Amino acid sequence: MEKNLSADSSYLTKDVEVLRISKDRSRQTRVAVVREIPLTIFLNDQEIVTLLCTGAHVESLAVGFLKSEGLLQQRKNLKEVVVAEDRQAVQVYTSESSELAGQLFGKRTLTSGCGKGTIFYNVLDSLQSKPLENQISIKAEQVRKLMTDLHKRSELYRLSRGVHNCGLASTKKILIFRSDIGRHNAVDMILGECFLDEIKTDDKILVTTGRITSEILIKAAKMQIPMLISRSAATSLSLELAHTLNMTLIGYVRGGSILAYTGEENLIC
Amino acid sequence: MEKNLSADSSYLTKDVEVLRISKDRSRQTRVAVVREIPLTIFLNDQEIVTLLCTGAHVESLAVGFLKSEGLLQQRKNLKEVVVAEDRQAVQVYTSESSELAGQLFGKRTLTSGCGKGTIFYNVLDSLQSKPLENQISIKAEQVRKLMTDLHKRSELYRLSRGVHNCGLASTKKILIFRSDIGRHNAVDMILGECFLDEIKTDDKILVTTGRITSEILIKAAKMQIPMLISRSAATSLSLELAHTLNMTLIGYVRGGSILAYTGEENLIC
Repeated sequence: MEKNLSADSSYLTKDVEVLRISKDRSRQTRVAVVREIPLTIFLNDQEIVTLLCTGAHVESLAVGFLKSEGLLQQRKNLKEVVVAEDRQAVQVYTSESSELAGQLFGKRTLTSGCGKGTIFYNVLDSLQSKPLENQISIKAEQVRKLMTDLHKRSELYRLSRGVHNCGLASTKKILIFRSDIGRHNAVDMILGECFLDEIKTDDKILVTTGRITSEILIKAAKMQIPMLISRSAATSLSLELAHTLNMTLIGYVRGGSILAYTGEENLIC
Repeated sequence: MEKNLSADSSYLTKDVEVLRISKDRSRQTRVAVVREIPLTIFLNDQEIVTLLCTGAHVESLAVGFLKSEGLLQQRKNLKEVVVAEDRQAVQVYTSESSELAGQLFGKRTLTSGCGKGTIFYNVLDSLQSKPLENQISIKAEQVRKLMTDLHKRSELYRLSRGVHNCGLASTKKILIFRSDIGRHNAVDMILGECFLDEIKTDDKILVTTGRITSEILIKAAKMQIPMLISRSAATSLSLELAHTLNMTLIGYVRGGSILAYTGEENLIC
């Protein structure tokens, strides 16, 4: 299941000329900036959304986004995923009815960036009635190791700034790793990959460098992922949802320290 | 113009019980988490969007969002801004035509979080034909001081993690400071404040802790703000836009170091 991403790294950065000023000198130099492109997603030839992303893993991003938003249901109904030559558009074809998908999405939705939510209202009710049943136990040292592994992957791509990193993991290791300029994109790429390859997720852990807001928690819950681990903090709403949905939420994993916001019984010291 | 925010701080965090594990011990403790609430914005009684935000400065967030999205034009046409008692809805009334606003917004738009864009396509063309004329010069030491000031304000509210900080500034000091769980929200709050109070922005600087993606740059450009300073990195697309729009983009201000991505002639060593 582990993926080799080296083929994609050229999409992720672009070298630019800048003036760098340090305390005692200034000089022209070149730095790598994260690539940002608009990616338009179509479902059965209907335009659904334009995301701003790094341009890597656009197939799984498109499929993961549509799945997350409830616009794709069953893997078996997915007919084709076509990536445009310039990689700025993805066409997804399904045999499921999508006649009203674009309109419904447009109406229901909402949002424009960090901490803003498309999926919020509709999903919440259906999720609240179905707390997750599967639970995972993990040792504190395993939590630290997963976060260290996430950072190591990040260093490998020299993109530790300007992107969010996210991994699907067992208690022992990161199985799928993704980076993107958006917290949500990185999670959607992983969800899309799991949907496409029919990877079981109800026994896995989502590990991320990004803050845990309600949207990220809901994305994980929809994939029945019972445990989230983040380097960063969680919000009040994500905590309330984690309680209701019976999810284990571990945050602020840094400098040896770990916070168990919910599900502390699943964290073994 | 400087605002006292102490009245708002109670909205911004919530104390929760967590298990904290450090290297040699574990204990129950209380930590503050950032508040996250859904805020629904109505324009002339039409539902436009639901944002996830901290719940502070909801009037200016609502107005700034609508202005940013092109759904509000002139200050003089704004009739009333009504905040619901639970602060989870804002009704904005304007004498401008808004009949199709919701539908247009729904169609044009799309997006769901960090690095995803509502305003992208429509705005780009109109902006590209109008590079900003006003320019600001700033000394390297002033850049460092503005970033230090932004952090000091952040420490004051003990919210340095879990939120993005943003300020509208002169070359000498931060004039308006805002924090939110979303990079975009913090900017929209400032834009809304400027729109409501008719504050001139074409001689100001936007200072932020968040990454500079195309959306943030476009928001600033729409307010004719000629200079952006960030603690974090910029993306390739934001750089291209900054070049085209004649904006000065300064990033990665940390540890004494400063990068001038564009407009280096406006940065005095």
